Amino acid sequence: MRTVDLIIKKRDGGALSTAEIDFLIAGYTQGTVAHEQMSALAMAIFFRGMDDRETGDLTLAMARSGDQLDLHDIAPLTVDKHSTGGIGDKTSLVLGPLASAAGMPMAKMSGRGLGFSGGTIDKLEAIPGFRTELSSAEFRAGVREIGLVIAAQSGDLAPADKRLYALRDVTGTVESIPLIAASVMSKKLAAGADCIVLDVKTGAGAFMRTQDDARALAERMVAIGQHAGRRVAAAITTMAQPLGANIGNALEVKEAIATLRGHGPADLVELCVALGAELAVLAGKAATPAAGAALMRTTLDSGAAWVQFRRFVANQGGDLRYVDEPERLPSAPVIQELPAPRSGVVAAINGEVLGMAVNELGGGRMRKEDNIDPAVGLVIAAKVGDRVSEGQPLLQIHAASAQAATAVAARLAAAYTIGDQSVAAPPLIYEVIR
Amino acid sequence: MRTVDLIIKKRDGGALSTAEIDFLIAGYTQGTVAHEQMSALAMAIFFRGMDDRETGDLTLAMARSGDQLDLHDIAPLTVDKHSTGGIGDKTSLVLGPLASAAGMPMAKMSGRGLGFSGGTIDKLEAIPGFRTELSSAEFRAGVREIGLVIAAQSGDLAPADKRLYALRDVTGTVESIPLIAASVMSKKLAAGADCIVLDVKTGAGAFMRTQDDARALAERMVAIGQHAGRRVAAAITTMAQPLGANIGNALEVKEAIATLRGHGPADLVELCVALGAELAVLAGKAATPAAGAALMRTTLDSGAAWVQFRRFVANQGGDLRYVDEPERLPSAPVIQELPAPRSGVVAAINGEVLGMAVNELGGGRMRKEDNIDPAVGLVIAAKVGDRVSEGQPLLQIHAASAQAATAVAARLAAAYTIGDQSVAAPPLIYEVIR
Repeated sequence: MRTVDLIIKKRDGGALSTAEIDFLIAGYTQGTVAHEQMSALAMAIFFRGMDDRETGDLTLAMARSGDQLDLHDIAPLTVDKHSTGGIGDKTSLVLGPLASAAGMPMAKMSGRGLGFSGGTIDKLEAIPGFRTELSSAEFRAGVREIGLVIAAQSGDLAPADKRLYALRDVTGTVESIPLIAASVMSKKLAAGADCIVLDVKTGAGAFMRTQDDARALAERMVAIGQHAGRRVAAAITTMAQPLGANIGNALEVKEAIATLRGHGPADLVELCVALGAELAVLAGKAATPAAGAALMRTTLDSGAAWVQFRRFVANQGGDLRYVDEPERLPSAPVIQELPAPRSGVVAAINGEVLGMAVNELGGGRMRKEDNIDPAVGLVIAAKVGDRVSEGQPLLQIHAASAQAATAVAARLAAAYTIGDQSVAAPPLIYEVIR
Repeated sequence: MRTVDLIIKKRDGGALSTAEIDFLIAGYTQGTVAHEQMSALAMAIFFRGMDDRETGDLTLAMARSGDQLDLHDIAPLTVDKHSTGGIGDKTSLVLGPLASAAGMPMAKMSGRGLGFSGGTIDKLEAIPGFRTELSSAEFRAGVREIGLVIAAQSGDLAPADKRLYALRDVTGTVESIPLIAASVMSKKLAAGADCIVLDVKTGAGAFMRTQDDARALAERMVAIGQHAGRRVAAAITTMAQPLGANIGNALEVKEAIATLRGHGPADLVELCVALGAELAVLAGKAATPAAGAALMRTTLDSGAAWVQFRRFVANQGGDLRYVDEPERLPSAPVIQELPAPRSGVVAAINGEVLGMAVNELGGGRMRKEDNIDPAVGLVIAAKVGDRVSEGQPLLQIHAASAQAATAVAARLAAAYTIGDQSVAAPPLIYEVIR
């Protein structure tokens, strides 16, 4: 088998066999398939696509390229969750305790955020003492004893994906549905969960700009899961505006705590309940999504999810004083309000602009080695459909200095579209692919 | 300017600006544009193409990446010739003396053959003493004093093309008309000729399989020449069967000598006259291709081209005894005839199969470091349209041993299609793009 012949086969519209895909990924992991060959192949895949079988084989080959977790000796069934990334998305901080409190152990490996604001790991690290770098023994003990672990992705999980992802980033081959789907799912399969719920976001500030693209990605990822013998469901959800009110690491932890204590924003609660309901059906805890949703609401309303969150934080070294009194969490020295430039109805909020502003305030990283300021961020006061008067705050800017706040204010104002017509709030969940 | 943005621009169907192409080629030459980025770009170009302006800019950028010859202090006008490569193609050995004897100095850099049989350099080296590795001073002196030099391509001519060509070979991005055209023309532009005639071959054993592809490539290369201010014409010629009778290095030199002495095969003479006629029009030596052809026939028939060939060989150190008595040239110890398996009319000869057989006999190289046996090859006895009787020879195999000859015989027989219907010989020149 010659690599160049396989590139030409895909270039000319052929389907690569299972053995051919295994040859390419094993060779790329070992270095016998060169970067320049892999990038040419990725570009050919961009143009020619891959069918479900090829995409599934690619995912499995990448999942097998490094360590593969098997937690069945600890828990008969574990669940996992993945989001394609959105602005103000603190769902995992709520869903983890919620699902595990309802008897579904969650063992989650998460990446650090790059680009918009922080990732789940960055958010948890806003809690003083919280440790995300766990040994394999600690990770397994957390699943067994608490039923919930969230840790930074460790060493050798799907190294072929790691190489390919970095390559795609510099070669203009990121935007390929089969390659995106294989990348996400290879890490999820290697991490070992039996049931996986995916949150595919669409709209400004989301990776998938259109609902059609989001559906194509969701369908592809569910198909991969089936190919690999896992139970997978994918919700397609809006990024027409940020989720909840808070964007920024400590601010999002505060909002997650409020939600677990029963005072969450309606959209965040709705999403966590819906994703938990899908997991409950996949895990056999509920017969229907409606029954699953009822189980989630009960678990949240009873306080069981909150109790579970505290156990989880304590288990990973977090200082519970900051969780019980969240006003102790890092807070910004400057809070500046952004006034509405005119009266009217909020018609749209560009989440991408908000996310980039948080980045610029110091709440995200542009490069891997950047440090994050956990305190900075935004608190949204007016969401889509809300009526505002001129001068009334659209949002609060939490910044390290007045200068930093002022520097982003004009762009933040431009992220808001204010009209005269009344506007219905956009639906949160468009559809679920099962 | 970021490389990845330029890859994405081309991927999404955009046209790259002159400055963007210069940035990419300069960066690739210097190493700031990585191989994996260039291969992804090449694959994007495979799918999206390049317009004439982009292709011209790419060619100029590659031509400028290394040394650029300027011979105007030696000769006011020089000519050059390039063939996309065919089986048994000894045209340069005849056209060089012919054109230069007619007052058009030719300064030709040529690559060594790779793949099918040998290249022009390998053929000339079948003449004992002939030197193709010339210093710059020797090269210039040959143009000034003799009016004809053919030398192996020296060090730093279009190094960006050299890198890109090697990259395309392993990344499945060879078959792109703009990339092929830019590769050929970058070397021709850097070599400095004012007038260039191109021979684009089409058919089995040729790089361009269809006449449409050959026309597209010819048009693209003529457009590049115009973009660069050179005079260029391109003939589209058949590879429906090998040119002349002989394939193999010394065998082809013998056939070229016979042609220069007035005993050449009709197709080889016709092609050399036609290509020379185009050069004569480009160089202002003739008003029309017909007048140019008359000039070429006179130059050939008068013996002037033969005299010029002897001067050229002597100037580059070749031993004239071998030229004057070509039976002294290396000859194979074994000559084995291939009999026709049935009576009938030769309907087709697959030149690719013949070329590969010569390679296997030792007359070409599979890798750069392979040595060539100048003596081996094939002499075709029956061409397309010829009537043969069962057992009559189709061709002679010139081999180093009976074993080597027998090893290729069966495949050679399969290269011939023999039918019952009478067949017209295929036209030699389909059209000329000017």
